[in-house]
Amino acid sequence: MKSEPPPPCPFEPMRPSELVRDDAYFMQHAFNQALKAWAENEVPIGAVIVHEGVIIGRGYNRVEGLNDPTAHAETLAITAATQTVGDWRLTGTTLYVTKEPCPMCSGAILLSRVDRVVHALADPKMGCLGGAASLHELPRINHRIAVTVGVLEAECKALIQSYFQLKRADG
Amino acid sequence: MKSEPPPPCPFEPMRPSELVRDDAYFMQHAFNQALKAWAENEVPIGAVIVHEGVIIGRGYNRVEGLNDPTAHAETLAITAATQTVGDWRLTGTTLYVTKEPCPMCSGAILLSRVDRVVHALADPKMGCLGGAASLHELPRINHRIAVTVGVLEAECKALIQSYFQLKRADG
Repeated sequence: MKSEPPPPCPFEPMRPSELVRDDAYFMQHAFNQALKAWAENEVPIGAVIVHEGVIIGRGYNRVEGLNDPTAHAETLAITAATQTVGDWRLTGTTLYVTKEPCPMCSGAILLSRVDRVVHALADPKMGCLGGAASLHELPRINHRIAVTVGVLEAECKALIQSYFQLKRADG
Repeated sequence: MKSEPPPPCPFEPMRPSELVRDDAYFMQHAFNQALKAWAENEVPIGAVIVHEGVIIGRGYNRVEGLNDPTAHAETLAITAATQTVGDWRLTGTTLYVTKEPCPMCSGAILLSRVDRVVHALADPKMGCLGGAASLHELPRINHRIAVTVGVLEAECKALIQSYFQLKRADG
C-alpha cells in the first residue's frame, strides 16, 4: 500500500495572499499541508496551528507512511507546535484543519488547550466537535474551545472526494 | 515543574505470576508502567498492549517530560505496538490501562482497531469508554471494541490518589 504511487493530483498549491491574514489565509496553508499528504498517497488532510498571526506548527496525515494510527494532521501539528513553544499548553492558539477532527484529535485539541478550532468540513460520521459528537461540550471538561466551521469548505471537500474517487478508479 | 523531584512513592512494583496470564496479570504490568511515570513526576498512568498472550507495546504518561499533551500512556503504547508489528492496525489485541481512557486515547484506540480494552478505574469526568461519554458506541463508527472495567481497581485508584495527595502535601 505504502509503496504505491498516489493518483495524479489535479489540485495546485494555493498561494495565500500575505495582505490579509484571516481564517481563509491560514486554511489555505492547511490545504497545502493536505497536498503533501496526497503526494505521499495518504488521505489528504492538513492542519496548521497559529499564535498571534504566526504559524507555529504544521501537520498532514501520515498514518500509512509512519505505520501509526495516531499520526493524524492535527496530532502532528500539536506536537510540532508544543516543540516550537517549549510547553505542552497551547493557550492562545487557533488550529486550522481541512476536515472536522476525529474523536482522537478532538481529544488531543482539548488536552493541548488550543483556544479555537477552524475546520473546513463537518464530518457527521466521526467528527467530534459537533458532527457526530460534541466532546468540547462534555459537562465536566476543564477547557472550553470555540469552533468555526465551513472556511474553504468547497475546496477541502473537493480535495478529499477527488482523492477517494481517483484511488477507486486506480484500483 | 519537570525538574522537581517526584514525591516519594510508597508503592512497590508488582510481581505478576507467570502461571496465570489473565487480565489481572497484564494489569499488573500496566501498574508497573504507571510507577515509571511516578518516578518521572508524571501522573501515574500506565498501559500495555497484548497480542496472543505477549506484550507488544508499553507506555506511561510522559506529558511533562516530552512537553507533549498527546504523550499519554495509551497513545505511546499504541505507537510502540504498531512499530512492533509493522502495521498501524492492531486487530486481535487487548489494551490494558490503569484508568479509563480520555477522549483522545479512546479515539486513538478506535482508530488503531484494538479489539478489547481493560481498564482499572472509570473516570466520570473525562472517560470516553462509558464514564463521561461512550465514543465506542457512536452509531456510525466503523470498529467495535469490547470494554472490561474494574480489574485491579483498588490498587490503581490508590496509586493515582496517593500521587495527587503527596504532590499537594509537597507544594
